Amino acid sequence: MSYQAPLQDMTFVLTELCGLAALSELPGLEDATPETVEAILEEAGKFAGQVLAPLNRSGDEAGLGFDNGRVTVPEGWQEAYDQIVEMGWNSPAASPEHGGMGLPFAVNAAIQEMFNGANTAFQLCPLLTQGAIEAIAHYASADLQESYLPKLVTGEWTGTMNLTEPQAGSDLAAIRSKAVPEGDHYRVSGQKIFITYGEHEMTENIIHLVLARLPDAPAGVKGISLFVVPKFMVNADGSLGARNDVRCVSIEHKLGIHASPTCTLSFGDDGGAIGYLVGEPNQGLTYMFAMMNSARLGVGLQGIGIAEHAGQHAAAYAAERKQGGRPGSAGSVAIVEHPDVKRMLGLIKARTQAARVLAYRAAAASDIASRSTDADIAAKAQRRLDLLIPVVKGWSTEMGNVSASLGVQVHGGMGYIEETGAAQHFRDARITTIYEGTTGIQALDLIGRKISRDKGYAMAELLADMDDTAARLDAASGDGVNWAGYAKSLTEATAALRAATNWIVDQAASHSELPQASACAMLDLAGVCLGTWAMADSVLAASARIAAGDSAAFLHSKLRIAEFYRTQIAAQAPALLALVTLGADAVMALDAADLGVSA
Amino acid sequence: MSYQAPLQDMTFVLTELCGLAALSELPGLEDATPETVEAILEEAGKFAGQVLAPLNRSGDEAGLGFDNGRVTVPEGWQEAYDQIVEMGWNSPAASPEHGGMGLPFAVNAAIQEMFNGANTAFQLCPLLTQGAIEAIAHYASADLQESYLPKLVTGEWTGTMNLTEPQAGSDLAAIRSKAVPEGDHYRVSGQKIFITYGEHEMTENIIHLVLARLPDAPAGVKGISLFVVPKFMVNADGSLGARNDVRCVSIEHKLGIHASPTCTLSFGDDGGAIGYLVGEPNQGLTYMFAMMNSARLGVGLQGIGIAEHAGQHAAAYAAERKQGGRPGSAGSVAIVEHPDVKRMLGLIKARTQAARVLAYRAAAASDIASRSTDADIAAKAQRRLDLLIPVVKGWSTEMGNVSASLGVQVHGGMGYIEETGAAQHFRDARITTIYEGTTGIQALDLIGRKISRDKGYAMAELLADMDDTAARLDAASGDGVNWAGYAKSLTEATAALRAATNWIVDQAASHSELPQASACAMLDLAGVCLGTWAMADSVLAASARIAAGDSAAFLHSKLRIAEFYRTQIAAQAPALLALVTLGADAVMALDAADLGVSA
Repeated sequence: MSYQAPLQDMTFVLTELCGLAALSELPGLEDATPETVEAILEEAGKFAGQVLAPLNRSGDEAGLGFDNGRVTVPEGWQEAYDQIVEMGWNSPAASPEHGGMGLPFAVNAAIQEMFNGANTAFQLCPLLTQGAIEAIAHYASADLQESYLPKLVTGEWTGTMNLTEPQAGSDLAAIRSKAVPEGDHYRVSGQKIFITYGEHEMTENIIHLVLARLPDAPAGVKGISLFVVPKFMVNADGSLGARNDVRCVSIEHKLGIHASPTCTLSFGDDGGAIGYLVGEPNQGLTYMFAMMNSARLGVGLQGIGIAEHAGQHAAAYAAERKQGGRPGSAGSVAIVEHPDVKRMLGLIKARTQAARVLAYRAAAASDIASRSTDADIAAKAQRRLDLLIPVVKGWSTEMGNVSASLGVQVHGGMGYIEETGAAQHFRDARITTIYEGTTGIQALDLIGRKISRDKGYAMAELLADMDDTAARLDAASGDGVNWAGYAKSLTEATAALRAATNWIVDQAASHSELPQASACAMLDLAGVCLGTWAMADSVLAASARIAAGDSAAFLHSKLRIAEFYRTQIAAQAPALLALVTLGADAVMALDAADLGVSA
Repeated sequence: MSYQAPLQDMTFVLTELCGLAALSELPGLEDATPETVEAILEEAGKFAGQVLAPLNRSGDEAGLGFDNGRVTVPEGWQEAYDQIVEMGWNSPAASPEHGGMGLPFAVNAAIQEMFNGANTAFQLCPLLTQGAIEAIAHYASADLQESYLPKLVTGEWTGTMNLTEPQAGSDLAAIRSKAVPEGDHYRVSGQKIFITYGEHEMTENIIHLVLARLPDAPAGVKGISLFVVPKFMVNADGSLGARNDVRCVSIEHKLGIHASPTCTLSFGDDGGAIGYLVGEPNQGLTYMFAMMNSARLGVGLQGIGIAEHAGQHAAAYAAERKQGGRPGSAGSVAIVEHPDVKRMLGLIKARTQAARVLAYRAAAASDIASRSTDADIAAKAQRRLDLLIPVVKGWSTEMGNVSASLGVQVHGGMGYIEETGAAQHFRDARITTIYEGTTGIQALDLIGRKISRDKGYAMAELLADMDDTAARLDAASGDGVNWAGYAKSLTEATAALRAATNWIVDQAASHSELPQASACAMLDLAGVCLGTWAMADSVLAASARIAAGDSAAFLHSKLRIAEFYRTQIAAQAPALLALVTLGADAVMALDAADLGVSA
């Protein structure tokens, strides 16, 4: 059940499908040559497999201690965290000027997938710190940056994001926490829930980023500001001062990610926690939105990482467990030989590979958007990133859940026994479709801000790229690929996605609420169709390498997995299109009583 | 989060769709008039809601004690079990000659759905006892029946089924436990795992039914015999004697059903447990197969019950939780008003209702098969039952899992917190697609024994019934129903199921292994299409009642839920047909290395 980073596929996706060589020509990424990246990924893979993965099961079993506001992490956690800091794995994409490695986001995506896949509960801590770094690096004053960034980047301090309140979950307009000005700082008070790594003692300080309202703030989303609130005050010389007025009042007993403290934080019980405004007043939600892409990409990568881990785990079991015979075999065979077990493992593998391409491509778009010197190219990349993010987050995490469930199923009765570890993936994965915006929220983002707002413009650009791939399939030849079949499948997928997009845009033009009932189907359709495109590009790239003399077995596997994707997953596109365009009326017709809600 | 038995729908399904009035004309069921049944279901519903459901969460939290072979159940369990015995709920379908209520299986299905839905971990104990009763009542000698049946029927003793061994799960041919003759009994030895309620002290005795091999038994499935092995010996006067040589060596730490002891039982550590042969030697597996229908129906009903409970739980939360606005509403609204939440709750409701019809119809077929005086009618009912069982078991439990997951999703972040209880449904449901034969095993049963073996004959009978319903839809009229749409959907579903059946039969004729790769898709297709038929019959029945002047709001809800099913679920049939007929080749083409298994 040890995790091995899928380095071969990661490198293939980065080099063949994300243009890694071109990324390393962007300003600031010159050091990220394919050779260097390969070496870095190999080291990261070792760390994931040898340090993080072995703590995954033990951390889940041990869980967390909580006593009078103090949180204790499982055995081995501290040592692993210290290594993260020492080896520079805390924030690989952070800028060198702040002490980071300055790796491309695309490469960081692979590293995050590995670390999250190896040990989701652990990696949440660096993930949240990365979010805090990004917020401070982009929006905070030079003084705040100087005080907080260096130790956040190394990981000597960790960061948190404080958004949710009991009455304000998906709807942040309902936030009530307050910040009252006092000299050069503010006094912050209020209660925040579901704060990941909100308290622990692995580092000497924790830097909370907190959404709160100024006294004169307008109601709703336009009156929310962002504050830095350290657990311990930071003196001018960088040393730590008094404990700030924030404490952890409880941690949650959760279905999964047992070793990740999910905290209720109380700010200001003793007069107000000292906080510093980030950027301008009342811009907190704008800043959060700007950071949302990387946070949602990060959670999408959790889904992919867990799917990969669950798939490896199930494949290893299926190779060992003997049960039942097959025609032509004397005695019982390993269950991996049984067609239905192959099918389950194939589903995990094919969707994981497709989702990986989409996620890394989103990350590569982020590199281009933030670094290209050509404004048009950068703007197009930003549109691509914005469009892909809800699909990457929503589809990868739903896929992660299904994959972890299939992993349990492959284990049979043993999958239901906790010590086997398959159940942990299933429990851990379940949060990923919820936090950082539920799948429903991702779907609304997709059909609203990402499709309706620009009347399908960014989607049309993407569909044009899919058309290009289809044309390349039409012109392609080479053994081991059903080229005509793949061209047909991609053409159908593209047509389905185009038709669904048009339906959404048309409905939105009439200000109908109807598309909201189709939003999740649209997200699923987008995932399936973009996955078809990703696998088609994979087939073209693998086939070209084979034609050029590369004999790696991996490339032939890639072709078979892609054909599996085509017939098992891409084939769903027409049904999903029907769901988008024909399924919404019956949803809207339901009243609460139909659903068992008493009037 | 309290559970309320869906009495209105249960009664509707039994009376309108399962021919309850006709069932009560069968020999021995004369007392089961619709009025009596309604009264019984109401009482059962009270017990489920008021006694079993309140123990569901507390039992999960408390879990089980295990100390030196002794298992202790959670607080309240003993009292609830005593009430089961006192009120006669232990085995409602058992024959009055053995002290049972003699209710129709169809009515018992509703009771089992309620009890399992209210508290799956608890109801597993009576469920297993019912299996033991059935085995003894059908196959054991009069002496064994006299010694064991009365107290099993009342529930004064409980029963277990001992099949699985570490090397023998889905493949019972690998069973190694031994039974050596000694006078009028046998000495049984071996280790059995995953034995539900294998040990507890709620009753003074436990009667184990054990599969084991006689010394001269042939290898494989034809050498397995069935034995009764009591925990305490039973004296001739019915009093209890010495402890038998069987003990519980451990209980499993599981993902869910925490309050149901899953035991490893060791037989014969001290010379051999005394056991009595049931029926003939080497017929154990035949007897197990004969009991399989009711056991699998029981697990299918767990899936339906959990889905119903999870749906009620989520609907109650959605009615209370306010978040976000809607066009035309000032301020935030209950989330049940949001289209995507409606969609999720609708999915739970629609599939639960469809699966309920199929399960109760299977149970009604069982009543007819076992009681009809017309041999042809009985034989046809048996064919129908045999055909429906893998679909009821497989599809209902997969549906239960998806429903419980949607229930978590409706809760958002709160769904991930254990105290909310949504996560428990998700954990509990996860075993139902595994035990009593995994979904993969159900699917192989469907395409093999149930479709290929009779060359699609039983399925053709069922498809003819679906054609009849489609013809009735064509001829129907009445407000509130898209009759043409429903006729089209059912016609398409019937055509898809017929085409898939033909494909399976054709492939099997060429002795191809290929259909195994399509088996799960075939099971899903069968569930979706038979569900379409069930909902179509529901629409016809509800519309007829409305036309006759019944103004119940429930009937109008039924029409809207059916339309939801049609556009959201029935619409998947063509894609599933494509999966069956076109998806298998790519599965079979995968080799183990493609799936990450090292050579």
